[in-house]
Amino acid sequence: MMTQATFSLAAKPRGYHIVTNEILAQLPSLPTVGLLHLFIQHTSAAITINENADPDVRTDFESIFNHIVPENLPFLTHTLEGPDDMPAHIKAAMIGNNLTIPITDGQLNLGIWQGIYLCEFRNRASGRQLVATISS
Amino acid sequence: MMTQATFSLAAKPRGYHIVTNEILAQLPSLPTVGLLHLFIQHTSAAITINENADPDVRTDFESIFNHIVPENLPFLTHTLEGPDDMPAHIKAAMIGNNLTIPITDGQLNLGIWQGIYLCEFRNRASGRQLVATISS
Amino acid sequence: MMTQATFSLAAKPRGYHIVTNEILAQLPSLPTVGLLHLFIQHTSAAITINENADPDVRTDFESIFNHIVPENLPFLTHTLEGPDDMPAHIKAAMIGNNLTIPITDGQLNLGIWQGIYLCEFRNRASGRQLVATISS
Repeated sequence: MMTQATFSLAAKPRGYHIVTNEILAQLPSLPTVGLLHLFIQHTSAAITINENADPDVRTDFESIFNHIVPENLPFLTHTLEGPDDMPAHIKAAMIGNNLTIPITDGQLNLGIWQGIYLCEFRNRASGRQLVATISS
Repeated sequence: MMTQATFSLAAKPRGYHIVTNEILAQLPSLPTVGLLHLFIQHTSAAITINENADPDVRTDFESIFNHIVPENLPFLTHTLEGPDDMPAHIKAAMIGNNLTIPITDGQLNLGIWQGIYLCEFRNRASGRQLVATISS
Repeated sequence: MMTQATFSLAAKPRGYHIVTNEILAQLPSLPTVGLLHLFIQHTSAAITINENADPDVRTDFESIFNHIVPENLPFLTHTLEGPDDMPAHIKAAMIGNNLTIPITDGQLNLGIWQGIYLCEFRNRASGRQLVATISS
């Protein structure tokens, strides 16, 4: 059986944000055993799972990905939407726009240190729309 | 219910190609609500979703990933298959070989700016084989 | 129908390891047609699919990702857990913590050159726990 919900996350500043609870609040009750698929309908933001404890991890995510995918590389041609746009597309391809999480005993079966990240790569962005599909 | 289709995409030059319609043409009719899983059976090409509008985005994808994962790094040992081979494996790991997309109202529920990318990392490649699995 | 299994892989040294058979040994018999979802409950290791033949590929994976995400970048703030920790989180986000593989004719439908990689990014790690979910 499949159920689906489409919803927006509140607009967030550029950076990496833990949104596990914000997403759970939008979902119907979870099945005993199943899968949650999350899909972000954008190409300049991403979703992934990473450490939910020390906030320095999220700050370092921002620094390191800016270091790996810098703005204003001299050979770029898609520059009309601002210097943060093309790096945002690359980061989105690296980190990913979809994610599947196991559901066990009616709950997301995340590891103890895991949280869902919304990765906002644009300097100014509206709320991001997600499609959640629950299979059981 | 699950249905599966295996098919090849036409051979493509090195670069990033929008293949949404080429894939849809190979699929049976989609269920009202479900998931499409795409899996590429290769280790030197990838599939992802990114911007479907300005073709400069795809050109910049090629330039930026070549910049991040350059050919001929002096410490490489797997060089027998050519300078484009080992970077191809790394790019495939970064971008990914599988993708799940929600199906809503009988259609892929992509965002308005999203298209499916076939990322061809080899200088010369044959058509790439995909396995599509539709769940409902 | 969904069945789920939780298990640990044996502890491995830092590097890239083919674990296809180690995972298959933990799974119940596979359905004729379906999907296998693998989820690693950690934030400093990853799972992906890549070349299963030349072991030099896995050595070069280690060298190249260390080159792209070096240790001891001067701007890092999350350094308490050692110089390998923050790069491990970044590599995990790049390569991914979850993977879905088609099942066809009762077997994983991998390409001929594909194997499942456990990517261990920490210098010293215990066995990594996975949740496998089989849908049919």
